[in-house]
Amino acid sequence: MPRLHLKPELRILGIDDSPLLSKDILVVGAVMRGGDWLEGVVRTCITKDGLDATDKLAEMVTRSKHFGQIRVVMLNGVTMGGFNVVDMDVLSDKTGTPVISVMRRMPDMPSIRNALNNLSEPDLRYGLILKAGKAVEVSTTRGEPVFIQYKGIDEASAVEIVRSSSTHSRIPEPVRVAHLIATGIVLGESSRRV
Amino acid sequence: MPRLHLKPELRILGIDDSPLLSKDILVVGAVMRGGDWLEGVVRTCITKDGLDATDKLAEMVTRSKHFGQIRVVMLNGVTMGGFNVVDMDVLSDKTGTPVISVMRRMPDMPSIRNALNNLSEPDLRYGLILKAGKAVEVSTTRGEPVFIQYKGIDEASAVEIVRSSSTHSRIPEPVRVAHLIATGIVLGESSRRV
Repeated sequence: MPRLHLKPELRILGIDDSPLLSKDILVVGAVMRGGDWLEGVVRTCITKDGLDATDKLAEMVTRSKHFGQIRVVMLNGVTMGGFNVVDMDVLSDKTGTPVISVMRRMPDMPSIRNALNNLSEPDLRYGLILKAGKAVEVSTTRGEPVFIQYKGIDEASAVEIVRSSSTHSRIPEPVRVAHLIATGIVLGESSRRV
Repeated sequence: MPRLHLKPELRILGIDDSPLLSKDILVVGAVMRGGDWLEGVVRTCITKDGLDATDKLAEMVTRSKHFGQIRVVMLNGVTMGGFNVVDMDVLSDKTGTPVISVMRRMPDMPSIRNALNNLSEPDLRYGLILKAGKAVEVSTTRGEPVFIQYKGIDEASAVEIVRSSSTHSRIPEPVRVAHLIATGIVLGESSRRV
C-alpha cells in the first residue's frame, strides 16, 4: 500500500446523505482543499434501503470535473440512505482513489444485524459492512475520538489525513460541509450534528 | 447610518439562485463566519420571473436558527430566478439586517429595461432595480473590481466587509459558496463562475 504524499492543499471529496424523507435520497459531495476551501459541490441520488450506493457514488466521483484532482474520498460511515451499504473496496477500485469512512461512534453490530432482517438481502448488506474492516479509533484534539475504516491507503496516512482535515470539529471538514449542504437542502435548514 | 463593528468572525449569509431549469427556482443561503467557516445552509424556492423573491428571502433569513447571529445579508445581484427582483430596502427592514448586493459587472440598464418588457409589471421591476441604488466600484487585490449596492449600512463598512470576506476570489466567500451549492445541487456539479 503506497504511503500517500500529504500536502495541505490535498483535494478531498467528503460525502454525506440527507434525511430519509422519501424513497429517493439526495447524496452530496463537497470537494475541498484539505480542511479549508470549498472548490466544488456534486450530488447524486440513491434509493432508500436500496443496493445502488456503490455504483451511484462511483459514477458521481468519476464523472466530476474534479475527478483528476480528488486524492481521497471520505464517507460519513458506509451505510447511506438507510441501509444502502457502500462497498468500500469496489468504490476505491472503480475510482482509483483511497476511501476513508469516518464515524463518531463504533457501530453497534448486533443491532445493525437485527435491523437488516427487515430488508431484502440482509446477508449481502451485512457482508459489505463487515468487509469495510474493523474500525480504528483515532484520538483527536477535541476530547472524543473518531473511528475510521479505510481502503486503498495505509493506516498511518489515513489517520494523518483525517486529523489534518478536521479543522473545525472532530469530523473532517469535507464531510461536515457535505452534511450541512445535504441537510440544509432537504430540510430547508442544516442540522449541525454530523 | 451606524458604522458596523467589524470582527473577523462576523456572520454573513450569502445568497445565490440556481440555473433556470424550471418554474421553481432553488435559492441557497450559506452562513459563514467572515470568509472562513461554513456554519449553516438554508434554502428557499422562488418563482422564475415572479415577484416573490423579497418575501421568500426575508422568510428564509428570519426563520433560520442563525437569524440572531447574522450581521449581513449578501446577494449575488438583486435579480434572482430570471427577473424576480429583490427589494433591498424591504429585505433589510424585514430582517433588521444590512443587505449588500455584489456584482462582477456594472448592470447594463438599457438591455435590462428592454428585457423587462416581455414580463408582467415591467415598471415595478425596473423601479426595484433602480431603488437598489447606484452601484459603487470596489477595487480588489485580484485585478478586477466588483460593484456593490448596499442598504442599512454605510458605504465604508460595506466596502470593508466585502473586501475582508473575499478570501478566495474577488467575490465574498459566502456568495461564492452559495453559488457552488445552488448550481451543484440543481445541475449535479457546481459551476465555478459566480
